[in-house]
Amino acid sequence: MSPRPFTAEDYVVRMGRATEQAAEAGLSGLLITPGPDLTYLCGYQPTAVTERLTMLVLASGRTPAMIVPKLERPEAEAASGTTVELVDWTDGQDPYAVTAPLLAPGGRYGISDGAWAMHLLGLQQTLPQTRYAALTQALPMLRAVKDDDELERLAAAGAAADAAYGDILGVRFAGRRETEVAADLSRLLLGYGHSQVDFTVVGSGPNGANPHHEAGERVIAEGDTVVLDFGGLKDGYGSDTTRTVYVGDTPPDEVRKVHDLVRAAQQAAFEAVRPGVQCQEIDRVARQVITDGGYGDYFIHRVGHGIGLTTHEPPYMVAGETHTIVPGMCFSIEPGIYLPGRFGVRIEDIVTCTADGGKRFNNTPHELKTVH
Amino acid sequence: MSPRPFTAEDYVVRMGRATEQAAEAGLSGLLITPGPDLTYLCGYQPTAVTERLTMLVLASGRTPAMIVPKLERPEAEAASGTTVELVDWTDGQDPYAVTAPLLAPGGRYGISDGAWAMHLLGLQQTLPQTRYAALTQALPMLRAVKDDDELERLAAAGAAADAAYGDILGVRFAGRRETEVAADLSRLLLGYGHSQVDFTVVGSGPNGANPHHEAGERVIAEGDTVVLDFGGLKDGYGSDTTRTVYVGDTPPDEVRKVHDLVRAAQQAAFEAVRPGVQCQEIDRVARQVITDGGYGDYFIHRVGHGIGLTTHEPPYMVAGETHTIVPGMCFSIEPGIYLPGRFGVRIEDIVTCTADGGKRFNNTPHELKTVH
Repeated sequence: MSPRPFTAEDYVVRMGRATEQAAEAGLSGLLITPGPDLTYLCGYQPTAVTERLTMLVLASGRTPAMIVPKLERPEAEAASGTTVELVDWTDGQDPYAVTAPLLAPGGRYGISDGAWAMHLLGLQQTLPQTRYAALTQALPMLRAVKDDDELERLAAAGAAADAAYGDILGVRFAGRRETEVAADLSRLLLGYGHSQVDFTVVGSGPNGANPHHEAGERVIAEGDTVVLDFGGLKDGYGSDTTRTVYVGDTPPDEVRKVHDLVRAAQQAAFEAVRPGVQCQEIDRVARQVITDGGYGDYFIHRVGHGIGLTTHEPPYMVAGETHTIVPGMCFSIEPGIYLPGRFGVRIEDIVTCTADGGKRFNNTPHELKTVH
Repeated sequence: MSPRPFTAEDYVVRMGRATEQAAEAGLSGLLITPGPDLTYLCGYQPTAVTERLTMLVLASGRTPAMIVPKLERPEAEAASGTTVELVDWTDGQDPYAVTAPLLAPGGRYGISDGAWAMHLLGLQQTLPQTRYAALTQALPMLRAVKDDDELERLAAAGAAADAAYGDILGVRFAGRRETEVAADLSRLLLGYGHSQVDFTVVGSGPNGANPHHEAGERVIAEGDTVVLDFGGLKDGYGSDTTRTVYVGDTPPDEVRKVHDLVRAAQQAAFEAVRPGVQCQEIDRVARQVITDGGYGDYFIHRVGHGIGLTTHEPPYMVAGETHTIVPGMCFSIEPGIYLPGRFGVRIEDIVTCTADGGKRFNNTPHELKTVH
């Protein structure tokens, strides 16, 4: 059962709202390059992202316009929901000169975070009076508040990841390489309807103490603690969940103690979610629990990040982030403790904020499971 | 048989040469973000490219330094050939402030084309006196001249693509969807040693008239002309070849005529390759043949692009490109004619320049093959 596809009307609404939000933020408009912002605003996902400039220009008082390489024009025209004026340019032409008439010379524009520096520099050279700001700074909440259709997709992606976790507890860990368990996770995510797997972290023993270790050739052994962090896209929206398991019957006391502390931090941060709370507060609450437990130096990353069309996007749950949480925001809460050379523990759920507080999209138990 | 892996010493040589070239080009140094430039210079390919800043800083008179997110430091340390000083930053810190001491305040730096606009804007804000230029403008030839080890890889990638073409001539076309033939191409490329397939264009009938059509649900029929353009990476280096086939026994006269013209244009452009010729000359020669044949309006893209660690990179064979061809450069020569609503024809080889002139890495026949 696929969710209702987004329609041209949905995109018109999104582009209109983005244009209003940009004006409220003091921006002359938005410059959107291929990637999640463009997918969100007009549904266009060029099959090949190349060095050739493709850019949607949104500004108050004018029809949305998109600069496209001439040879990609047919694809852009065919894209569902591309209810925008197409302005094409040919190899050998200067695409920034073609763009210039669409921009206000003294204006200030929000530009996609991931737009190529080459394109930004081209615009800066062609229009030296125009100023630019990355969307994460200028309009970080553009895609942060999800509508009902998006929440439905994120909930379904979370449920699929939960199903994958349920099954992975039954596979063999001891004696197999991390990469083999990672391949199992990948297969399970795809089997539960993901179209794309973005990461399958299997961090066993000391590898678990590196929060961004993916999966390597290490053979998992009885007595290992194993961090499992996996996710991808289902119907275009992201999943991302982490559980830490123990290989064997009886986890040592320190593993239990560290796991209990991470679990308490995750729960406390989850309970702090409600409308009006600053994003940094979620990080602070989790960090306080771990610091009070004596492991503050070993929690070496922010507690969370937004999720939607990508698995890392605003809002970030990090010290200094003063944006307040609004119902419909979706983000990870993933405290961890990393003991170099020994083991790591992380517990992560995707959470959305409702009028009444947090609601999890991952609902598998937090208790320390044992595997074999 | 895998080629000899690149070593830490290779990377030291490359970083040293890049630093010298940057100085000769009037740059204070180079700012290299994850992607082909970083892979080329130090061999580091972070498993996940995220919004967190990773950036190699090369400048005369100092050790290469790389800004890395703290939680990715272990991965960067472990990367083969990362003989650079690592400077880490933690979530919540301003990564641009951490970078600033490595840069000369009044300097001018070349920055990777695909660096995130967000990072460039962060640097511009932190160091307003420092200037930046995209590598494609400031140092386009950084990776353009391939060494013997790279040429060996590109030749092997081309031979593998040729083998895939040989086999695809034997599969069924008529009655199957473009996507099915594309899947065959993908399987063949992987079977012949590609680690990654980047594109499998199957443009049948009118779809062939859209140069960037990939493959769709159209069912191929007898009487179709079909553009096959496919490639990917083998041992890290790219393949990219195009042949156009006819489904049936006897191609119509116009298909033959257009195909002969494209073939003549490809051959003329190939014969024009020699050291010292401007890149734009290769485009001009091919275009002249097609224009003289009366189809100039239907050749709607540049004739070629460089290839190496990516399948699209400098040097570009396009009007206005005055860089001269140097032995060791590798690029596509791919003229095409696109008749809207009817059919398209393109013929593409990867070519390298030797002291004596051009040498093809694709060597399958150019004649119009028939399939069924």
